Amino acid sequence: MVTRSAPRRTAVLLARGADRKGLVATITGFLYGHGANILHADQHIDPLAGMFFQRIEFAMDEMDLAFTALRDQLGPLMTDLNMDFELFGHEPLPRLAVLVSKLEHCLIDLLLRARAGELRGHIVVVASNHETVRPLTELFSVPFVCLPVTPGLREEQEGKLLTMLAAERVDLVVLARYMQILSARVVQAYPLRIINIHHSFLPAFPGARPYHQAVEHGVKLVGATSHFVTEALDEGPIIEQDVVRVTHRDTVEDLQRKGRDLERLVLARAVRLWLERRVLCYGNKTVVFD
Amino acid sequence: MVTRSAPRRTAVLLARGADRKGLVATITGFLYGHGANILHADQHIDPLAGMFFQRIEFAMDEMDLAFTALRDQLGPLMTDLNMDFELFGHEPLPRLAVLVSKLEHCLIDLLLRARAGELRGHIVVVASNHETVRPLTELFSVPFVCLPVTPGLREEQEGKLLTMLAAERVDLVVLARYMQILSARVVQAYPLRIINIHHSFLPAFPGARPYHQAVEHGVKLVGATSHFVTEALDEGPIIEQDVVRVTHRDTVEDLQRKGRDLERLVLARAVRLWLERRVLCYGNKTVVFD
Amino acid sequence: MVTRSAPRRTAVLLARGADRKGLVATITGFLYGHGANILHADQHIDPLAGMFFQRIEFAMDEMDLAFTALRDQLGPLMTDLNMDFELFGHEPLPRLAVLVSKLEHCLIDLLLRARAGELRGHIVVVASNHETVRPLTELFSVPFVCLPVTPGLREEQEGKLLTMLAAERVDLVVLARYMQILSARVVQAYPLRIINIHHSFLPAFPGARPYHQAVEHGVKLVGATSHFVTEALDEGPIIEQDVVRVTHRDTVEDLQRKGRDLERLVLARAVRLWLERRVLCYGNKTVVFD
Amino acid sequence: MVTRSAPRRTAVLLARGADRKGLVATITGFLYGHGANILHADQHIDPLAGMFFQRIEFAMDEMDLAFTALRDQLGPLMTDLNMDFELFGHEPLPRLAVLVSKLEHCLIDLLLRARAGELRGHIVVVASNHETVRPLTELFSVPFVCLPVTPGLREEQEGKLLTMLAAERVDLVVLARYMQILSARVVQAYPLRIINIHHSFLPAFPGARPYHQAVEHGVKLVGATSHFVTEALDEGPIIEQDVVRVTHRDTVEDLQRKGRDLERLVLARAVRLWLERRVLCYGNKTVVFD
Repeated sequence: MVTRSAPRRTAVLLARGADRKGLVATITGFLYGHGANILHADQHIDPLAGMFFQRIEFAMDEMDLAFTALRDQLGPLMTDLNMDFELFGHEPLPRLAVLVSKLEHCLIDLLLRARAGELRGHIVVVASNHETVRPLTELFSVPFVCLPVTPGLREEQEGKLLTMLAAERVDLVVLARYMQILSARVVQAYPLRIINIHHSFLPAFPGARPYHQAVEHGVKLVGATSHFVTEALDEGPIIEQDVVRVTHRDTVEDLQRKGRDLERLVLARAVRLWLERRVLCYGNKTVVFD
Repeated sequence: MVTRSAPRRTAVLLARGADRKGLVATITGFLYGHGANILHADQHIDPLAGMFFQRIEFAMDEMDLAFTALRDQLGPLMTDLNMDFELFGHEPLPRLAVLVSKLEHCLIDLLLRARAGELRGHIVVVASNHETVRPLTELFSVPFVCLPVTPGLREEQEGKLLTMLAAERVDLVVLARYMQILSARVVQAYPLRIINIHHSFLPAFPGARPYHQAVEHGVKLVGATSHFVTEALDEGPIIEQDVVRVTHRDTVEDLQRKGRDLERLVLARAVRLWLERRVLCYGNKTVVFD
Repeated sequence: MVTRSAPRRTAVLLARGADRKGLVATITGFLYGHGANILHADQHIDPLAGMFFQRIEFAMDEMDLAFTALRDQLGPLMTDLNMDFELFGHEPLPRLAVLVSKLEHCLIDLLLRARAGELRGHIVVVASNHETVRPLTELFSVPFVCLPVTPGLREEQEGKLLTMLAAERVDLVVLARYMQILSARVVQAYPLRIINIHHSFLPAFPGARPYHQAVEHGVKLVGATSHFVTEALDEGPIIEQDVVRVTHRDTVEDLQRKGRDLERLVLARAVRLWLERRVLCYGNKTVVFD
Repeated sequence: MVTRSAPRRTAVLLARGADRKGLVATITGFLYGHGANILHADQHIDPLAGMFFQRIEFAMDEMDLAFTALRDQLGPLMTDLNMDFELFGHEPLPRLAVLVSKLEHCLIDLLLRARAGELRGHIVVVASNHETVRPLTELFSVPFVCLPVTPGLREEQEGKLLTMLAAERVDLVVLARYMQILSARVVQAYPLRIINIHHSFLPAFPGARPYHQAVEHGVKLVGATSHFVTEALDEGPIIEQDVVRVTHRDTVEDLQRKGRDLERLVLARAVRLWLERRVLCYGNKTVVFD
């Protein structure tokens, strides 16, 4: 039976646990037994950690279980296998909030990709501590919220932010050159669900003004890194990185210009990977099934 | 049961056939049922061609079947599933012949990688139409055969080549800048088992003197392509390609110098992928599970 | 005398001619004699063609000649040296027309870069054979002209295009995924002043549907090429090229998505290089002083 | 007068000083006045530092001054311009010593390039603290010196090393994976004349075991850096860097394998640039005229 027509309903299973024999056969056998057609299957074993990771994307069109029933039945199976798992249906699409300060290049890049259908998610709100990008969001018909940061009132501003994120039922927060450091309170509310773009090849040049640091060190490449936000500044699990060549002729302004191209590409790749459920974390590292 | 120790005996299954439901579950279930521990599993569906491709690497240490018995039992299973398959044990290692003319950079690169343990194969013979590289092969203690090409006697030379390849029980022929065009007779004797390195980004600049062609066209990148040899010159399935940046300042000699670095990297990657049984062909294309 | 402050008025001299001794010394000596401060000087000799190329960027702040007088005096000097030359002041900035069909990614990229100050030029008009991008141009406050293409009336449409380009005193025409082939009449009106982006690594895959061609050939990299438009389709002098890695998993749609990122980068680099007067042509090739 | 034939005698002038008007014109005018034909001229101004850098490569075939006389006359001219300079003739070629421990990949790469004529220099001696690479050096007919390192006797070993380097009149010391830290005494004897390859993208992961550090941090790219050796470990001026993509599947052994390809390319580029007199230092940075 050749599968020539695209499936209408798909799902993704992410699973993680101590490695043991038979994990692939047991899980794929269960899915097949209920009529799933496996479209993509990736797995990874970290032999040092003794950990097993799996991503299975499958068509549900001919399954004998609805999505909720499938999740309910997977629970005991995965418990038996001593594994954590998440199951994602093809809908509803994840809801994204994009946080930004004044620089617009990463934001507009995400808005364009969303409009072009590149992202399996909805940008439901853009928030900023400035008014700068409001007209842009209006062009794309995306709600905008300005949450100014006043010295001494950061706690209050973050309270408003958390209230807004909750009201919008946000699944992923994207820091698209947001120039504020989030407190532990916000980070803990969205564990491994905040993605940042840092404009250096981490762990080189964390913190402020990485392009200035790069020029001072005379490096021949500058980078950008997209990572999950944790309480340790610029030290969360890395999802994606890339670099671009620079020379002695490049000033800080040139690095900023070259960096803009790099930042938007690297951030967009990381967001896309997350939305397609291709990213698993363990320890301070990621497994990226691309 | 955490698999902390490296398996002693592994095998790779490559399979290919019309796509249908249950292929992953059936195959992995069969292997698991006989005690295999799956180390890596990759699959690919080409929805346009309706084709399914799979590579499974598994540990045999705790299997209840020896290698030959496993292959015998896979036969009927795969026939039922309407699939072609190949099964490769961890030994014996594939036997390689490297054919070369006068340029030594690709040959020495392969010899070095073999010595460093990067290649899962043995270079059992080096053949050339010149004597140039003989001392190099002696340093690496690899047998060398000189098969000079005399005008009008190509058929005879190829006869000697085929005899030698058969005597050495060669699994893969690597053309590491071999400046002769093989006749259909040789190509047919080693179908999809001859890998060539061509010094351009194919399909641009096939045939002779690609770097001269590149300079004439004023391209800003030059490439190298490793592909299977078929009867259509420089048109066999592509395994690996890469490019390097050039400028107006680069002469043909500069392109040759930059190209040497590229050629050896691209050829080595293709050979390595083949030796690890990561390359499947269909039509005039490859599926590369890297 | 250390030049710590940025010069207020700069100029660029591009010169080209048969190579001979003393060209650098004579030209830089002339400029220095009139008070110029040389900021950047690049030169190239093509020994095969016997050609010499030079780009000099210099500060005019302390010169004893105004821009027009300088150009008048350079004329006889260059005639003596048997060289062609062009002299460009820091103003007025070049005037660009961007031609586009329905795909917006290259256009918006150029509009963003113009707004960010990355381009030393003004986008004075956007023209299209469709209405699709009109709202976008309005957001950026750039005039938009719709010039629909009706079968049998191409000549008339191109007449309107030429009239519009002349009225806007356009210096450079950028084809940012404009899906029409310009006739010789338009090409001849803007010799080496029309830049196109083609979505392949030329000379591979010229003409229509290059991503489909790439998938059919099973290449492992896809490219984009920005080149001057000549009467030979997709064969004009190449300004800039780049590639991105693809695999057997990538469909035509994936190539189009990856290609969009590449196309906009490659086109933007080519336009930027032209605007900074870094591109010289000879034969069917370019010298790019970057 | 078209220069179709390659010049027989060339020279390179490297000059550096505070920026001021007329430097290019004065220097090129002087050379032209004595019959030089300028083949390549590069310059750079660092506006923040107020520094000017120049590299001029020129043919001496028709000059009215011999090399020594030229250098003598350049002295007062450069003093007037308040500039440092170095003048290099096309011969004698620089003399290189390569220091290595047990890993052979960088050494053999340099030996091959020297034999292929890629390097404008002679490898006059290879020294190691082990015997491992002796057979390799014999194949290439390069003298080998074993200088074992005994605990407590490092000073004595370095004394022998310095004596040997002096006896061989070495111009450049290349550390091609030499696993010993040189003392200040050696570094000071060869200021900016010792080039090291470090197997990370510095300043990330200095010191020992950078690939292990990279795996622990979960980075998605690993790098290599070639730099001048100063008394601050792994902090000298960077000449060249590059990176290669890695994934969660790559073990430390995979990184070492990928790294070997990167290290030899990056080190070879740095050595080549130095030998062609394209590298100037200031502060802790380099100007590389490539």
